[in-house]
Parts: sequence; C-alpha cells; structure tokens
Amino acid sequence: MRSLIDPTDLSLSEIDDILALADDIMKNRPKYAEVCKGKKLATLFYEPSTRTRLSFEAAMMELGGNVLGFSSADNSSASKGESVADTARIVEKYADIIAMRHPKEGAPLVASMHVDIPVINAGDGGHNHPTQTLTDLLTIKQTKGHLDHLTVGFCGDLKFGRTVHSLIKQLSLYEGTHFILISPEELQVPDYIKEDLDHKGISYTEVTQMDEVMPKLDILYMTRVQKERFFNEADYIRLKDSYILNLDKLANAKEDLKILHPLPRVNEIATEVDNDPRATYFKQAEYGKFVRMALIMTLLELPKPE
Amino acid sequence: MRSLIDPTDLSLSEIDDILALADDIMKNRPKYAEVCKGKKLATLFYEPSTRTRLSFEAAMMELGGNVLGFSSADNSSASKGESVADTARIVEKYADIIAMRHPKEGAPLVASMHVDIPVINAGDGGHNHPTQTLTDLLTIKQTKGHLDHLTVGFCGDLKFGRTVHSLIKQLSLYEGTHFILISPEELQVPDYIKEDLDHKGISYTEVTQMDEVMPKLDILYMTRVQKERFFNEADYIRLKDSYILNLDKLANAKEDLKILHPLPRVNEIATEVDNDPRATYFKQAEYGKFVRMALIMTLLELPKPE
Amino acid sequence: MRSLIDPTDLSLSEIDDILALADDIMKNRPKYAEVCKGKKLATLFYEPSTRTRLSFEAAMMELGGNVLGFSSADNSSASKGESVADTARIVEKYADIIAMRHPKEGAPLVASMHVDIPVINAGDGGHNHPTQTLTDLLTIKQTKGHLDHLTVGFCGDLKFGRTVHSLIKQLSLYEGTHFILISPEELQVPDYIKEDLDHKGISYTEVTQMDEVMPKLDILYMTRVQKERFFNEADYIRLKDSYILNLDKLANAKEDLKILHPLPRVNEIATEVDNDPRATYFKQAEYGKFVRMALIMTLLELPKPE
Repeated sequence: MRSLIDPTDLSLSEIDDILALADDIMKNRPKYAEVCKGKKLATLFYEPSTRTRLSFEAAMMELGGNVLGFSSADNSSASKGESVADTARIVEKYADIIAMRHPKEGAPLVASMHVDIPVINAGDGGHNHPTQTLTDLLTIKQTKGHLDHLTVGFCGDLKFGRTVHSLIKQLSLYEGTHFILISPEELQVPDYIKEDLDHKGISYTEVTQMDEVMPKLDILYMTRVQKERFFNEADYIRLKDSYILNLDKLANAKEDLKILHPLPRVNEIATEVDNDPRATYFKQAEYGKFVRMALIMTLLELPKPE
Repeated sequence: MRSLIDPTDLSLSEIDDILALADDIMKNRPKYAEVCKGKKLATLFYEPSTRTRLSFEAAMMELGGNVLGFSSADNSSASKGESVADTARIVEKYADIIAMRHPKEGAPLVASMHVDIPVINAGDGGHNHPTQTLTDLLTIKQTKGHLDHLTVGFCGDLKFGRTVHSLIKQLSLYEGTHFILISPEELQVPDYIKEDLDHKGISYTEVTQMDEVMPKLDILYMTRVQKERFFNEADYIRLKDSYILNLDKLANAKEDLKILHPLPRVNEIATEVDNDPRATYFKQAEYGKFVRMALIMTLLELPKPE
Repeated sequence: MRSLIDPTDLSLSEIDDILALADDIMKNRPKYAEVCKGKKLATLFYEPSTRTRLSFEAAMMELGGNVLGFSSADNSSASKGESVADTARIVEKYADIIAMRHPKEGAPLVASMHVDIPVINAGDGGHNHPTQTLTDLLTIKQTKGHLDHLTVGFCGDLKFGRTVHSLIKQLSLYEGTHFILISPEELQVPDYIKEDLDHKGISYTEVTQMDEVMPKLDILYMTRVQKERFFNEADYIRLKDSYILNLDKLANAKEDLKILHPLPRVNEIATEVDNDPRATYFKQAEYGKFVRMALIMTLLELPKPE
C-alpha cells in the first residue's frame, strides 16, 4: 500500500495515469458513484484549510465513501500530548485512508511510516502539498490539452510558495517547457531551484514586472502574498499590493492564456478578472476535486469500474 | 436556480407549496429516503448555531444526501482573508446547495449572486432567518390546521428579534390575523413594522403584561432576551427575568393554545411548562427539520417521488 | 428504550451479549454493513476527544448509518446558555441515538432523563466512561479467550483514573480474578474501592514497583499520568516518569501477557514496546469500534441480521 507524501513520490507515468483516471471520472461520473462504498476517509487537519479539506471530503463522497476526522488541532487529542504516530495508528483502525494537514514539516511522512493504510500529505508547513501540484497539472492538461511545450509564468511570492516550487519541478520533466519568473527581488525563486533548472537545461527568465512578458505566456500562475511569511510588517505592506493582476495588464495577453491560482486569494487578482474567459482559478478548484478522486482510487488500489 | 435569502423571496403560493410538501414528507417518510442520493449540502456556518446547523444536516441526511462544511469561522479559510464570494464559488464545485450563516448582514445574498447553485440564508446577523419563519409557519399550520383567523401573541424582545419581525410580516398576509404584542416599552416592535400593519389594516394591540391577554391567544410566541442585544448590563439584568412564562400564567389560557419559541431558551419559559400539552417548542424544532427537507427539494427542483 | 450512563447499568448477561455480538460483527462484517441504514448518531462532545468521537463515528458508519453533531462546546449552542436537557430534546428530533461527552459529571444522565432515544455516556468529567470499560472487557475476552481466572495488573495513576475504577468493578464480578495495583503512594486506588474488594472477598495486592510483580501478570493495564489531575507542578514532574513501561521491564513477563492502555499515552509506554507482540493497546482501539457497533445495535434494539 502506497502513500503520497512528496510530489516526487509519483513517477511521470503514475502522474499520467492519475490524470487519465481523473479525465475518465469527469466524463463518466455515474460509473464512479459507488466505487468507495463502505470505505472511509479520515481528514486529520491539524491546521484549518477549508478548501483543501472540503475538496477531499467532496471527492470521497462523490465516490460513495464516508468521511470522518477533525478540522483543527483544538478539536483533536493533540492537546493531550498524543504523538502524530499514535493518532495515525488509532485512526488506521477507523478509516481506510488518511488525508493529513499539519503545521510541522514531515508529520504526514511520520504518520505514513506507522500505518498500513495510505496517507496523503494535504500540506505540511511550508514543505509539500502534492495534491495541489496534481491539481495544477490536471488543470493545465485539461485546459491546454497537453503539458509540454508551454511557456509558464509564475507571479508573486516565488520564494516561500511551496506550490510554485513543486509545480516548477514537475513541469521541468516535460519537453519544451519555458518558465518566466515574475517577482520582486526579495521574493525570487530560491537558488537551489534555479541551479536545478540550469542543471537540467531548462530555459527560464527572471523579471520584476509582469507587463512586458504577458504576451508570451500560455499559463500565468498567480500566488498569494502570505502575511505570515514576512518577518516585518513594513515589508509586507510595501510588497503585498505589487503584482496585482487586473484587466489592464491582461490587455495584450494571449487569448488562450489560462490564469491559475492555488487560492485563497486576497487581492492579487482583481475581481474584475473573474469573468474573463482566461480566469481558470475557480475551475481549478473543481479539477482539484476530480484529481483527488483519482488519487484516492489509485492509493486504495480500486479497479476502474466497467 | 433559486436561492432563499429573505422570507419575502417566496410568494404565498410558494410557501403553501413548501408547507404542503413538508406535510407529505412527514406522512410518507420512506418515499423520500433517497431523493437526494448523490447530492451534497454545504453548511457554511461562520458563527456557531448547533440547532440550525444540525437541523439542516438531519434534513439532508433524511433525504439520502451527504453533508460537508464548517461550524465556525475559526475552522474556515475566512481567517486567511478569503471573501465570502470566493468561498462560495469554490464550494459550488464541491456541493449542490449551500446553507450559510454569517454574522454580517447580506453575506448570504452576496454568496448567492456569485454562484449557480441555490444558497439558503441560515441567519445573517440581526437581519433575516427565513427558514425559522418557514418553521414557525409549518408549526402553526400543523398544530392549528390553518394559518388564517388566528390571534397571535408575541412576547419578550420584540425590538431586536428578527424571527418575530419576519413572522409578523408573513402572518399579515393571511386573513383575520390579530396580533398582541407583549413587551417592555424598551423592547417594543419597531415603528416601521407598526406602520406597515396600519397600512395593511391589520389589527394589533400592544401591552406590557401577558396575564391580561392570555385568554385571547391562539398562539403565544415566546422569545429569548439576548444579552448581546443590550448596551448595558444593568438594563439586561432588570429586564431579562420579566416575561417569564410559567404554569401560573397559563392558568386562564385556551386549552388549544400553542406555545412556540425559536430556541435556544434561557429561562423565559419555566421548565415546568415543558410537559404541558400546549408546549409546542420542541415539536417546532422537528417541524424545522421537515420544512428544511421540503425547502432543499424545492430549491434543487427535485420532483416529488411517486 | 435504554441508555448507557454507568457501566453498572448493564448486567453481566447483557455485557456477555454485547461482547458476543461484537465477536459476531468482527467475524461477519458484510452482514452488518447496512443494519443502521437511515439511522443517525448524534455525537455531542462538549469537550474534545478525538479517539472516542471517531470511534463512535466509525462504528455508526460501518453499520451503514449517518453521523452529525459537534466536537467541542465552542461550536455548540452551549455558549448561548442552553441547558443540556434542552439540547438533548432538540437533538432527539434530528437523530436516533446520542453519544455525549461532557466535562460535568451527570450531564449524560440528565440528557437521558429528558429524551426517548438512547443516550450513551461517552465520558462525563472524572466520573464514568462505560464504553471504555466495554472496550477493555472485549479486548481481554478476545485476546485471552475468557474474562475469569486472570491476574490483572493496573499501573500508574490509580487514584483519579476513572477507567481503572470501572474495570476493577466489572472484573470483580468474574471468578478467580486477582488484582495487582501498582502505583506511587500518592496515586493509590481510593479506599472505597479497596473496601468493596474486601467486602466481595476479591484478592488484591498493592505494590509500588512493577518489576517484582511482572512475571505474575496475565494483563497489564497501563494508565496515563494526567497533568490536570495534579495540584502542583513539582509533584507532577517528580511522578510522571515513574512507572514507564519499557522492554527491560518486560524481560521477565509472561509470553502471553497482554498490555492495555486506554490511550492517548504520553510517555508511560516507551515506543520500543509498540512492536512487541504483547502490546495490545492499538488493537484495543479497534475493539473499541466493534464494541460500540454492538452497543449501538443493542440500544437501538436492532435484530442481528441473518
């Protein structure tokens, strides 16, 4: 039985299989309505995350399964000093698969090492969030038709954004990818990622303004500037309103550009963009549900229904 | 697809249809056990309200549907600064219908304007709480047999009580209604409501004591004196124990009087009244479940099963 | 309709029936997958307890039923001053059976006196926790094959541990039981329990070290030293690390010893013990689920399916 802790736990062909299964689920919903009947997903969320939690729960319910768990550490036994390993070992008796979000890096890995059921990392601190990466890949695949030969822009906080780092790593595996990294100097992609791109021979450009590069983009991946990532208030206030996407800035973008965002957004995408056909971020949330359905089925080793 | 935000969103004939459907559900429970199979209700409760939330959840479950959501803002993405509109647009991908409670007036309306699935206002600040009004109407209809030609007393906090204002408005539409408004001067029904009654030619009486009017009442609607509605502690302490209903005060009431209360109560109805056959407030909670079942089916446009 | 408030609510033969039903459930899982279809369990947890709550929820789900409720008082109407009796009377309209945990002793009893559906005490303050006792009994029965003629050691906080007191009381009813009570002087079993054992002629020994008595034990029941039970920090720090079980201390234990713990543990069992075949505490959590399935069926008076 396998777990998904790090996006790199999955090979390219495994990712392709999951995306293909998600595609089949979208096209044949009734066929999948009962595949998880009698199964239970435990959502162990040691820190709140509505969107991610509800996405997992909706996924399990649409497969005909049940859900139990907790939505914050306050409501859990963590306050009595129980270790993550012990909680996981107990929950293993109550559920068939676990989705865990935890403020500490490595907590889902520790859980997965102590149980015989699959554990999905639903975000561990600033570390990994592999189902977001799968969501992003499915969104690009479904809306562009392919994952290779794309010019992909990332905009905003590229230093701390774990979803950005994961997606760069994954897209690097596809032929013909070109990255455009748009950020203030203070929030540039870390050096180790650039070194990795150099090492693999992937082309990328770093800029500080989105306007000039807009016409080149096939994908524009916007990110939230998280207050909690800053060390002082002044920096946060100075930078948070930079890199706000609005209709003006989209004026000379491609017509088939797709705008993604992991959500929640604060103000980095003006609401006037929401009704533009290039806005893909709410649709992306729906793809997140479908890719989690495919992932749950894959980890539970459930056969595709006839 | 329609939402229910304000009790006046529904016409008299739509209300009649919902009450009739609720009646049929009560009489033919098994017939309705699977009508929402595969559907999901999202309960987005930005402030806690056990009774209302559990009532919605029980309603959806008794229709064979599933439930997901959150029970307080702490466990939601609201703390990350996400707007109600964005949360609704995401949840729309995960659920078929939303029930939202929010401390800010208008939040459910905003949500309903951004999504294509029905939104039910489960209480927005001191503003509207339309499913409570439907509950009250069903309770009166079922226990009295009709909604017209009734003398209806309201007792307690008639100034701030949103459920009182809504119910007065709705009952005003039925022929032969007479209101008796029992409250301390400080907590009388607002002038705009009295002006509306005058305008419509509905008869009403204002009194400060319940004893004298008790024999006339067909319905006695008791309300909670909410601490949070008062501006100073002294007023609260002086007034909260006024207007407490007990068996003494019921001595000369009609035998077929029905006592309603939106619950939770603190001490405005003495527990000695609970076993009196005129006490209808717990039964009212059950009617609340049935009317919500009818409402969910109506908004989802599900046909009455054969 | 019966409730389970105190472990002594059940006669020996009723306990035997529940343990036998749990055994049949374990052996014939598919047979029981739908026995609670259309039924709802309300989990009213006025204080958080992940393990107990999830155990009840998993139990109800594995019987094909639904679950609603709340996981802490913050998310309930308790904050509006509603009494437990009123909440129970409302929830009775929404659910078929209630599992209640409450910080105040007697709260589940009060609830059970006001409703016509079964109420299960899922822990009330330092008082009773009858489903833990049933769990312990099922664990011993399943792993030893019988409940009589056993030498049972209890180790740790024997003064405040409600689960210890209940289990001593129940095991006293079986022939040939011998207790070995291992604790610091400050945390010995209360006098009234020893008087009860004397009165019934049950043999027991009190010691302060576990090493010397280890070879005699058939069951070793470890308990958590709860910080909140101590009146001062110094005592807690001095005592909390005493009575820690590790592999060294197990060296001369019987090969078929079974080690139980109600969980969560802090550090009173070293993790090196977890993989020892005598460690039974995680398996015990699973038995807790099965015994709750049997209890729910029994209280709902559901016939054993063919």
